[in-house]
Amino acid sequence: MDAITVFCPATIANISCGFDVLGLALDSVGDRMTVRKIPQREIRIAPIIGQDLPTDPMKNVAGVAGMALLEAASYTGGFHLEIDKRIKAGSGIGSSAASASGVVWAMNELLGKPFSAHELVGFAMAGEKLASGVAHADNVAPALYGGFTLIRSYSPLDIIRIDAPEELTASIIHPQIEIKTADSRKILKTTFALEDGIKQWGNLGGLIAGLYTRDYDLIGRCLEDYIIEPIRSILIPGFNQVKKEAVKAGALGCGISGSGPSIFALSKGRKTAEAVGRAMGTCYDGTGIAYDLHISGINPQGVRAIKES
Amino acid sequence: MDAITVFCPATIANISCGFDVLGLALDSVGDRMTVRKIPQREIRIAPIIGQDLPTDPMKNVAGVAGMALLEAASYTGGFHLEIDKRIKAGSGIGSSAASASGVVWAMNELLGKPFSAHELVGFAMAGEKLASGVAHADNVAPALYGGFTLIRSYSPLDIIRIDAPEELTASIIHPQIEIKTADSRKILKTTFALEDGIKQWGNLGGLIAGLYTRDYDLIGRCLEDYIIEPIRSILIPGFNQVKKEAVKAGALGCGISGSGPSIFALSKGRKTAEAVGRAMGTCYDGTGIAYDLHISGINPQGVRAIKES
Repeated sequence: MDAITVFCPATIANISCGFDVLGLALDSVGDRMTVRKIPQREIRIAPIIGQDLPTDPMKNVAGVAGMALLEAASYTGGFHLEIDKRIKAGSGIGSSAASASGVVWAMNELLGKPFSAHELVGFAMAGEKLASGVAHADNVAPALYGGFTLIRSYSPLDIIRIDAPEELTASIIHPQIEIKTADSRKILKTTFALEDGIKQWGNLGGLIAGLYTRDYDLIGRCLEDYIIEPIRSILIPGFNQVKKEAVKAGALGCGISGSGPSIFALSKGRKTAEAVGRAMGTCYDGTGIAYDLHISGINPQGVRAIKES
Repeated sequence: MDAITVFCPATIANISCGFDVLGLALDSVGDRMTVRKIPQREIRIAPIIGQDLPTDPMKNVAGVAGMALLEAASYTGGFHLEIDKRIKAGSGIGSSAASASGVVWAMNELLGKPFSAHELVGFAMAGEKLASGVAHADNVAPALYGGFTLIRSYSPLDIIRIDAPEELTASIIHPQIEIKTADSRKILKTTFALEDGIKQWGNLGGLIAGLYTRDYDLIGRCLEDYIIEPIRSILIPGFNQVKKEAVKAGALGCGISGSGPSIFALSKGRKTAEAVGRAMGTCYDGTGIAYDLHISGINPQGVRAIKES
């Protein structure tokens, strides 16, 4: 196999009570990328469709992640990448992580899978570092493992993959406003009340239990964030209204995706998720804020091959 | 059935990263209590063996918990209690909770089970309030449900029961020093670092995952407490040494039971748990601090009948 085209999923990180630890992969929102072996030991990127991003591999998330893998591989050639970038940068659903994860997964396939998923996360994190200045794994872990991922620890990196209950469906609204990840981290407080912490880890424990037992009601009860959301939601116009309408329309819960501005809701069943999406959209209609709306199941496998040749 | 003798299990609350939310029930450490129907609408307590505790029902944890149930029941009689109190007061393994849970469970059996486990927790919490001034459920929930219990929320009370992996075994050492629960709460800080919070809820999420997947290594990696233990352990002489020796002897993890002074370790298998217990004991030998040592499996059912008549 000399070339492979992959689907690179969008992801939701910071799932309510799981700030900095819990993420999930989406099934029908994502980029496409074609990776081809070339004899030269380099990474070439061209074209990039859909977004105005640098094709210089050292300035491109996919380039940097790919280089990290290439340096660790016993392969004398290089790769050529064609990227069809469908996830908007700055949307809060893991645009850079999709590129970073897709490229390392594809290269690993082309090289006969010398690296584990755990190692691929490490390479993809190098790409994330270029994008946000921090080598975080919140989005690349679910993009590479699929389902839900819990990052228990960074040092050493400890990732636990959890199957998503089958009917769980996400509704995501991306209001077209810009929030920089760095800014949305800056407004966070560095300390918080023990009382809120207890509620937060009680909810995260309950959420993990709900995923294992497929208890949708429990999942819903746990989708609360007492620490981050009260602060970060200030940066997202209409957040409280969107959340209220999502829950009224039947969502199990609703929160900020990543560091925003996208807002996600989780529902049982596609039909409910669609109604929830419409209710979320209604909040921005007439405000002058444009938005994208996505309805997606949870992706069980992460990055996947679409075409091999 | 007019009388029942029950085993009232000791419990470990505040399991490392699960401060105020996660507890477990012990299988072979606990009180015995015989509860008998009497025609008078009152609760009589006599004798209490093993501990010097008030027999006035309004000053006794079992009496207060029992009255809470009696007031909610459509039963015109009362109960007589004989208590064989084997769990020492102030040990940190749920002495008062064993009494409160045992009495309400036994009464419920004698009345034909009109109340759910959830309701029994509510009655037992009234007893806990007498003991510590706070109606907490950390110990009564595992005592009544068995296994591990996660208290996701107090308002409304939301308890999630989780089976313990079969080979999980506890070693508990109770150094005979006195720490009042109120004092050990007083020294806690009311705020903490977000950075530590993230590690804490990552670990709690991982611990819940480890329980569902019976992954002993993962359970071990998660048994860390970044928030409470660093402060509370100061009140327990020798804590750091005991923890170090427990882990060296093969324990998966080790922490403070409840608000101390008991220290618990969890191990895979009874043989390891026994070696761990011996290693923990060695730390106090020659220090002049007397101690009790318990080795116990995890109790799958909570309070149970020993004899019915």
